[in-house]
Formats: sequence, structure tokens, C-alpha cells
Amino acid sequence: MRFTQLNEIELPAAFDAHVHLRDGEMSQLVTPTIRQGGVNQVYVMPNLVPPVTTVQQCLAYRDQLKAIEPNVDYLMSLYLHESITSEAIREAKKAGIMGVKSYPAGVTTNSSSGVIDYETFYPVFAEMEKQNMVLNLHGEVPSTPSHTHATKDATAITILNAEPAFLPTLKALHEKFPALRIILEHCSTAAALEAVRACGPAVAGTITAHHLSLIIDDWAGDPFCFCKPVAKTPEDRDALLNAVVTSKGRFFLGTDSAPHDQGKKRGEDKVAAGVFTQPNAVAYVLDALEKGVERGVVEEGDVTLEGLEGFFGGWGRAFYQVGDGRGEKVVLRKGAGRVVDVLEKDGLGVRVVPFRRGEETWSVEWK
Amino acid sequence: MRFTQLNEIELPAAFDAHVHLRDGEMSQLVTPTIRQGGVNQVYVMPNLVPPVTTVQQCLAYRDQLKAIEPNVDYLMSLYLHESITSEAIREAKKAGIMGVKSYPAGVTTNSSSGVIDYETFYPVFAEMEKQNMVLNLHGEVPSTPSHTHATKDATAITILNAEPAFLPTLKALHEKFPALRIILEHCSTAAALEAVRACGPAVAGTITAHHLSLIIDDWAGDPFCFCKPVAKTPEDRDALLNAVVTSKGRFFLGTDSAPHDQGKKRGEDKVAAGVFTQPNAVAYVLDALEKGVERGVVEEGDVTLEGLEGFFGGWGRAFYQVGDGRGEKVVLRKGAGRVVDVLEKDGLGVRVVPFRRGEETWSVEWK
Repeated sequence: MRFTQLNEIELPAAFDAHVHLRDGEMSQLVTPTIRQGGVNQVYVMPNLVPPVTTVQQCLAYRDQLKAIEPNVDYLMSLYLHESITSEAIREAKKAGIMGVKSYPAGVTTNSSSGVIDYETFYPVFAEMEKQNMVLNLHGEVPSTPSHTHATKDATAITILNAEPAFLPTLKALHEKFPALRIILEHCSTAAALEAVRACGPAVAGTITAHHLSLIIDDWAGDPFCFCKPVAKTPEDRDALLNAVVTSKGRFFLGTDSAPHDQGKKRGEDKVAAGVFTQPNAVAYVLDALEKGVERGVVEEGDVTLEGLEGFFGGWGRAFYQVGDGRGEKVVLRKGAGRVVDVLEKDGLGVRVVPFRRGEETWSVEWK
Repeated sequence: MRFTQLNEIELPAAFDAHVHLRDGEMSQLVTPTIRQGGVNQVYVMPNLVPPVTTVQQCLAYRDQLKAIEPNVDYLMSLYLHESITSEAIREAKKAGIMGVKSYPAGVTTNSSSGVIDYETFYPVFAEMEKQNMVLNLHGEVPSTPSHTHATKDATAITILNAEPAFLPTLKALHEKFPALRIILEHCSTAAALEAVRACGPAVAGTITAHHLSLIIDDWAGDPFCFCKPVAKTPEDRDALLNAVVTSKGRFFLGTDSAPHDQGKKRGEDKVAAGVFTQPNAVAYVLDALEKGVERGVVEEGDVTLEGLEGFFGGWGRAFYQVGDGRGEKVVLRKGAGRVVDVLEKDGLGVRVVPFRRGEETWSVEWK
């Protein structure tokens, strides 16, 4: 296969290991776009308001999503919180919940109930390890509060070094719980990739579609490219592209598609963090890889059908120990698709501007 | 003087060595706010559309500004451009124009006519040196075009390292033209401050009000804090605060106050770069210094009346070799002022949201 010469590619329908489907009207709007993106299985984030911290809430949320779009498999997660006990973990496991997502307090959308001290949760992690559940880490340290910090004492944490500063915590958790399956979500730096590679096979990383294209210059001045973790340098982006094609199972797709009403992106208040990629999830990755080859930072020979099948689905499903029950295929055609300018629907009061609005991309046809 | 104990301070009216007053309606709106900020003398940037590249344009522009607000001294500049010749420099000098501003092509608002290669302008710089004119540098290298760059060849330039990457050019220009007065405008990094200090006394730097408060976390997600050069790390911000109080003439105020209609900050398109600080220019600096002392990064003993008088006016006037012809004084009172939510005026179709809108600050009373 010569990747940049392809005009059409057939792939197993993808598994997106990190999605924000929200609730209420937003959920009605975005959940039906999962399959448009070439995806039939998703791992659903629990950062609703209030966060999903009980098995009952979690199952009810899954039912809501199923009612909106029944032709998707929803793998569910709980929000790591002081109310999560070892008993709750055992109950969750029995109910088929796959994992627990950890948000450091305050780093991103709806993370105000997040984690301040990881050691507090060691008993929970031990039970998760025993129950063979997955720990999903938002791998950033909160920024140093600007009003208190004396920079002469220590390097301050900002959104730029927040992920590298978290990596010792990943290492410590893996050493303490070597059999606990851990995912470092939305890796955004070369340092994060190295940290994942340095761990054993119980640790993997997800990579978003948009971090394969964006750098800091892109989100500076463009609210629709602003997310957490922020896109970093060209060197980081190109390391991510290479991690996709040389993953060998350590990295797989988790889009972190994060819809916000356009008013939260252009309003009076601060701009909400999140890039919305759901309706074109697989297509964006193909575009980014093609540009990487054109720039000479990705070896064309590294882009193989096996690698794409793995990144888009096989490796994520293997890590989560789930099958591809639906066995569906999609055909993608280069340049035959177009990103909508805005996602909207009659009767719904929310409108979402997608990543690369209005641009040409790959189309998706279900076989 | 114990700075943080002061509730009132009397200062000579300030000289703002870097202002964007625009033209048309925007000019009508913002020019009257110069004095509100405690300033009676300004160095006016020439990046109109089209740019101010002739003596005739420049003098006409000054007349427009004088007609709006006669009680301000406008020091004028030309926009460095291929049409600027040695003869134009001599003509400009005779007409009382103070300097020439160099924008690298494409780095900021209205810079598309900017400089690609500095050596091309060596004859112009030589004439400027001879005529004792000031060269104002926007000290950033344009970002590496994302679509062409192979990161394996060299470190890519982004908005983060654009200023440090420019500093060898500053050094080269100073070595080639040691008597040419050069200002590195809106220094935003510790590295830029060091580069200025490493040059002889012909080189100075301006520092804005907003770079004394902002770090990258502040403008990520807040269009009204987004400017070029972007605010960097807490360490850079704190180095700037210390440069203000230990300037000894090498650094002085140049706010780079850059108004944009709020629609350009919240609209469909990309967010325009620029922070608007004119109506509270001096007050913002006092607030930032106070916070620096509170954080323990500025020694209170370093904040002296002499230093404030120098930073706000004396040193800039000395560098530009102009007097304080008006001899006016202002009294500032802590907490007695408030930043407006939006700057607007009946009959004008533009509205500008200022930095720290709605917040408490120092008031300004003219004596």
C-alpha cells in the first residue's frame, strides 16, 4: 500500500476510546454523529454536571445514549471522586462498567470535582487492578495559581508544561500497580509518548485526531482549535504522527471530541476548552497522516493497512479486552467529504462548530 | 517610599512609547483615552491600512490625531517598507518624524507589508544612524509555515520561541550600526531583556502594561488577553516586572495598546491579536507591580519614586531625546478607579473591550 496514492480505503469501523457525548440537547445533537465519523464503538467520558459517580447514574446514562443512537456500543466509565469506594468498583465491574476516569481538579471542562491527591485513591486503584478495570488519566498537573506563586522558588506550572509535569505520577502509579491497565489520555507531547513507552504493556496512550494537526499557533487566536491539553510544538505534533504509525498497540485513537455550543466559544465569557471532531473522526487522522508524509516527517512506508486498522480500532479493542461485535466495515474516499460549517438540528437549542469547518476531507460509507 | 502602603502617588504625566491609535472611527474612539490613562505624550505606530510609508501621510496622520485630541504630543513613525529610501529618511528627519518601525512580514495586525530580509535595509539603517533616528523593532521571527516544515531538519519557529529566535538579529543590527538608536518593542521574555542589557546604551526595550500581568494560561481561552508577542511563562512575566524596577533607563513603558472592535475578538473569523490598555495605562502597571511585591518576586525596596518616574516617562523621553514640554502632573489613587466594561461612544460603530474590563484599579487625576 502506498498511502498517499490511495483514493479509497476499507477499514473495520473504528473504536473511539475517548468521547464526550454530554447530556440533554447536546447529547441529542452529537451522539448521532458517531457513526458519521466511521465509528461504531466508543468509550464514554463521565464528566457531566454533576459527574457520573455511581453505577446507577452510569447505566442510566448508557440507556439515554442508546435511545439516541442504538447502533453504537457504549463502553462506560465512572468519574474518580471521593465517593468512589472499593465496593463501588466491585459493583461497577459486575455492571459491565469498563473503567474510571481521573481528572485533576480544575484543569478542563467540568473537572472541578477532580483529583487533588492520587495517593488518597490507592485503595481504589488496588481494587481496580484486582477487578481488571481501566484507569483513564487526564495527564496534566493544575497550573500554579498565578496570584500566590513566587517563581524564584520553583518552575511554575502552566498549560505548556502541565503534561510533562504529570509524567512522574504516571510512572509512580504504574510502579505501584503494575498490572493495573492505565491509559494516558490525549497525549500531546513527545515526552508523554516516551513516558508511555517506558512503562510495561499495561500502560497505553490515546491520541486525538486534532493533536495530529494542530500546534500552538493554530489555537492562539482560534477558539475552535483550543482544547486541553493545548496543542504544543510542531516537534510534538510530528512525534504524535509517528506514534500513530509505529504504535504497535501502545497508542490508539481517542478523539476527545468535545462539543460546546458556539456561544461558549464566542461569548462574553472565557472560551470553553474542547475541539469537536466526532463527525469526521477517522477522516481527520487520514488527512493529518497525509500531510505528515508530505512534510517528510512520517515515512510513507510506516503507514500500513495493519497499522491503520490497529490505531483506529484493533489495538484499542484489544486493550479494553472487547471484541468488534458488530463486525462492520467502512469505506473512506479521499476528498469526497466535507466538514459541515456548523452542526445543528431543528428543535435543538445548541449549535456546534466542528474542527476544520467547511473543509474538504475523506467521506465515510458504511458497507 | 513603601510602595504597597501607598494609596496615592503623584507622577509626571507619562510618555507611552508604543501606541496604536488606528484611523477612522476607531481613532475617534481611542485617542481621547490617552490622557485618561495618565499619558500626555505618545509614540504612534504606523501600521494603518495602507501603512504609513511617506512623510506626507505621516504628517497628515498626526494632524488627524491632533484634531481629535490636541492636548497630547504625538511622536510619529514611518513603516519600514521597500519604498523607504535614504532620501525618505532625510526628508522624514527634517519633518520631525522620530523613527521607523520594522514589522517582520505577517507576525501581527497589519504587518503583511513587513520586512522579510533585514540586510536589504542596511542602507536605510545607515542613513537613520546618520540622521539620529530611532529604529523600532517588532522582535519576532515569523512562524515556520506549518504545511512545509520538516521538524527533523531544525527547530520550528512558533509564537513561543519567535522572540528568542529574533534576538541574534537585534545583536547583528546593533553591531553593524552601533550608534543607531534601536528599541526592542514589547519585550516578552527574560531572554529579550538579557539581549537588550547585553547591547550598548543605544539599545533599549519597551515593556507593555499587560505583559506585566499575563502568562500563557491567561490568553489561552480569553481573546481579550491575546496579543503578539503572546504572554509567556510566569518566569518571563516576573523578569519583566523586575526589569521595570531595575531598568536604569534600559526599559520604559510602551503599552502596545491595540484596540480591535469586539466583533474581531468574538466573531466568526480568527481572533485579532491585541490588548487594549490605553485608558488605564499607568494604573495597570502599578497594579502589576503591587502583585509582584505580594508574590515575593519584586523586592519592595526596588520600587522607588525615581524608578517609576523613569519607567513612566523620564527614560523614554531621554531615549527619544524629547522634553516633557507640557510639564503636567497626575495624581493616582489606589482602588479609586474602575476599568470600563466596554469603550463606546454615541455615533461611532466600533466598541472596544479593555484589558481587565470591569475591574478596580488606580484612578487618575490631572493637576
